[in-house]
Amino acid sequence: MNVHGSPTRTVWRTGGTVHLIDQRLLPHTFATVALPSVEDTARAIEDMTVRGAGAIGATGALGLAQAAALASDADFFATVDAAATRLARTRPTAQNLFAGIAAVRAAVDAHRGDAAAARAAALAAGDAWADADAAACAAIGAHGAGLIGDGARVSTHCNAGWLAFVDWGSALSPVYAAHRAGRRVFVWVDETRPRGQGASLTAWELGQEGVPHAVIADNATASFMARGEVDLCIVGADRIAANGDVANKIGTLKLAIAAKHFGIPFYVAAPTPTIDPETASGAGIPIEERSEDEVRYTWGWSDDGRFVRVRTVPPAARARNPAFDVTPAALIRGIITEKGIVPATPEGIAQVAPPRRGTA
Amino acid sequence: MNVHGSPTRTVWRTGGTVHLIDQRLLPHTFATVALPSVEDTARAIEDMTVRGAGAIGATGALGLAQAAALASDADFFATVDAAATRLARTRPTAQNLFAGIAAVRAAVDAHRGDAAAARAAALAAGDAWADADAAACAAIGAHGAGLIGDGARVSTHCNAGWLAFVDWGSALSPVYAAHRAGRRVFVWVDETRPRGQGASLTAWELGQEGVPHAVIADNATASFMARGEVDLCIVGADRIAANGDVANKIGTLKLAIAAKHFGIPFYVAAPTPTIDPETASGAGIPIEERSEDEVRYTWGWSDDGRFVRVRTVPPAARARNPAFDVTPAALIRGIITEKGIVPATPEGIAQVAPPRRGTA
Repeated sequence: MNVHGSPTRTVWRTGGTVHLIDQRLLPHTFATVALPSVEDTARAIEDMTVRGAGAIGATGALGLAQAAALASDADFFATVDAAATRLARTRPTAQNLFAGIAAVRAAVDAHRGDAAAARAAALAAGDAWADADAAACAAIGAHGAGLIGDGARVSTHCNAGWLAFVDWGSALSPVYAAHRAGRRVFVWVDETRPRGQGASLTAWELGQEGVPHAVIADNATASFMARGEVDLCIVGADRIAANGDVANKIGTLKLAIAAKHFGIPFYVAAPTPTIDPETASGAGIPIEERSEDEVRYTWGWSDDGRFVRVRTVPPAARARNPAFDVTPAALIRGIITEKGIVPATPEGIAQVAPPRRGTA
Repeated sequence: MNVHGSPTRTVWRTGGTVHLIDQRLLPHTFATVALPSVEDTARAIEDMTVRGAGAIGATGALGLAQAAALASDADFFATVDAAATRLARTRPTAQNLFAGIAAVRAAVDAHRGDAAAARAAALAAGDAWADADAAACAAIGAHGAGLIGDGARVSTHCNAGWLAFVDWGSALSPVYAAHRAGRRVFVWVDETRPRGQGASLTAWELGQEGVPHAVIADNATASFMARGEVDLCIVGADRIAANGDVANKIGTLKLAIAAKHFGIPFYVAAPTPTIDPETASGAGIPIEERSEDEVRYTWGWSDDGRFVRVRTVPPAARARNPAFDVTPAALIRGIITEKGIVPATPEGIAQVAPPRRGTA
C-alpha cells in the first residue's frame, strides 16, 4: 500500500539483508531498518519492530532465506537449521511464523547435500512466500468486500491491516477493497490496549487510505453496538485451530462476546497459513504472557515531540498481561480466507486447510 | 480510609470553603485543594478534580452549603438558587449530584423567608449528606462482604472505591470488609481507558489497604473469565433507573456481557441516592460524550518525574468518547445497597427506593 504516495511493503529482502518498516515508531515516524544478520531479524520479531501474523510469517521466511544467503557452503545445512530454530522460538503463538519458516526449510530440505542448490531454492522460496502473502491478502479483500455494503460501519480490533502483513492486510483488506470500489465505509478502531496497535497503526493506515474512522477506547465498542452503530466486526487471527477457534490479540474474545450478544456478525479474516490443522481446538494454543510494563506504561508522543512512556499505575502496582486470547468458534460467523469465506467449523476449516497427513 | 496512615475523606467543608482530594494527581501525588467559591467547586466537578458518584454528590451538597455560608442575608435565596443551578449542570448523568443538591435545597426551602435559619439548615444538611454517604458505603460493605468467600477473585471496573465517595466506597467496600475480616481476596483491576481510573485510583486504594490485586488491560478481563479465574464482578453505578438498568463508566456494559456469557455473577454496588425512580429505564439516561483528546492522549508520570500526556494516535486521527454506557438490568445479578442486596428489577428497586410521588 502507499506510504506518503509510494508503494511500500512491510518486509523485503536484498541479498543477505532483511528490511522492515519499524512499526514501533508508527504513527509518529515512518522509518525502515536494515537487518544484517539472522540474530538481528529474530530480535526484530521479538521486540515487535515487526508485528502482525503475516508480516511475522514473511519475516520468518525471509529470515531463513537470509540465513541461506549468508551461510557458507561448508556449514550450510547446520547454519540454516540453527537459524530455523532461532527464528521459530521468537513468538510462541505465531502460526504464520512457523509456516513461513517451514516453507523455506522444505525448499532447503529438497536439496540436502547440495548447498548451492539449497541456497538458491531458499532465496526463491522466501521471496515467493512474501509475494504469496500479499496476493492472499488481496484475495481476502476481494472475498470480504461483499460483506461491506454502502454505508457499512465496521468494528475492528488491533491491527490486521497491511502493516500486519506484507501488503493489503487481512481484516482491513475487505475495507480497502470496498472503499476503493466507491462504497462509503466507516471503521470503529479499538485502540487495543495495552500496546495500542489500533490507535497507532490501524488509524494511521486508514488515514493514509482516506477511510473515515474513529479511534475508541476498547471499552466503548459495546456501547456503539447497543446504539445500533456497528454493522459487522472483522478482526484478524494469530492462529486458527482445526475446529475454528481463533487465537488473536487480547480483547478479541470480549469483542466477539459483545457482538454475539447484539447479534452483530463477527468475522475473522486470515490467510490459510494462519490455520493450524494440527491444533484440534483453542485449548491447545499456548497464550503468551508479556511484560507487566506493557500495562503499567503507555508509549506515545509527548507535547514536546519526543516518543516517551508514561506510567499510569502506582509505582508498586502489579499487572497481568496476556497478549492473546482464544475466541471460540461458536462466536464467529465466518472466516474470510484467500480461498473464500468458510464457516468456523471443522468442515469449513478442512475446506480451505486440509489436515496435513503424515506430518508431525 | 487511611492515606499514609491518616484517616481521610475525599471531600469536606470548613466554613465557606470546600476541600477535596485532587484525584487528577493520584496515584502519583497526594494533595488536597481548598475551594473558596461555589464557582471553584463547580469547576472542580467539571474538570474531575473530584470524580465518582458519591464524592460528586457530597461535593454538590457541600457546594450548596458553601453557597449558603457565603451568601449575604440580602440576596440569600437568589444566590443559593443560582448556586444550585450552577452545580447541577456540571455533570448531566450524575444522579447523586442532583440528590445531594436537592437535599440541601430542601433544607433551605423549609426556611424560605428566613435567611439565617435557612443558612444554618443548609450547613447542617450538607454535612449530614456527607456523613450519610460514608455510613451508607460502610453498610454496603457489610451487606456485600457475604458475597466474597475466602480466596475470591473479584473483577471491578473504573473506581468505585472510597475515592469515589466520601469514604469506604461502593464496589470496593465489600472487598475492604471481607479483607478486614481476614478473608483472602484478590481484585482484577480493569485499567478503565480512556481516563484510567482503575489503573490509577483503584490500584492506589487497594495498595494502601494491602489488598492483593493486578491491573489488567480492559481487553483482558474476558480472558481471565474464560480461564475460570474470576469469581464475581462488582462495579459501581452513576445512575440506576427504576427498572434496574445501570449507567456507569464506559466499558461496564462490555464487562457485564462477558460475565453473563461465562455465568459469572455481576453485581452493582451503590447507595440508594444513585437510584433515580423518575427514570423508567436506561433509555432515559443521557450519555455524556467527552473530549476526543481523552482517547487521543494518555496522562501519566514520565521517567523523569513529570505528570505529562502522550499522544497515542496519528496527529489527524479522530476519536469518539462516550463517558458512560447503560447495562441492562437483565445482565445484573443484584444491586448491593446500604439497605441490602436487591434484584435489578422494578420490584427490587422499589424495595429500596420507592417512587417519589408528587415530585417532578
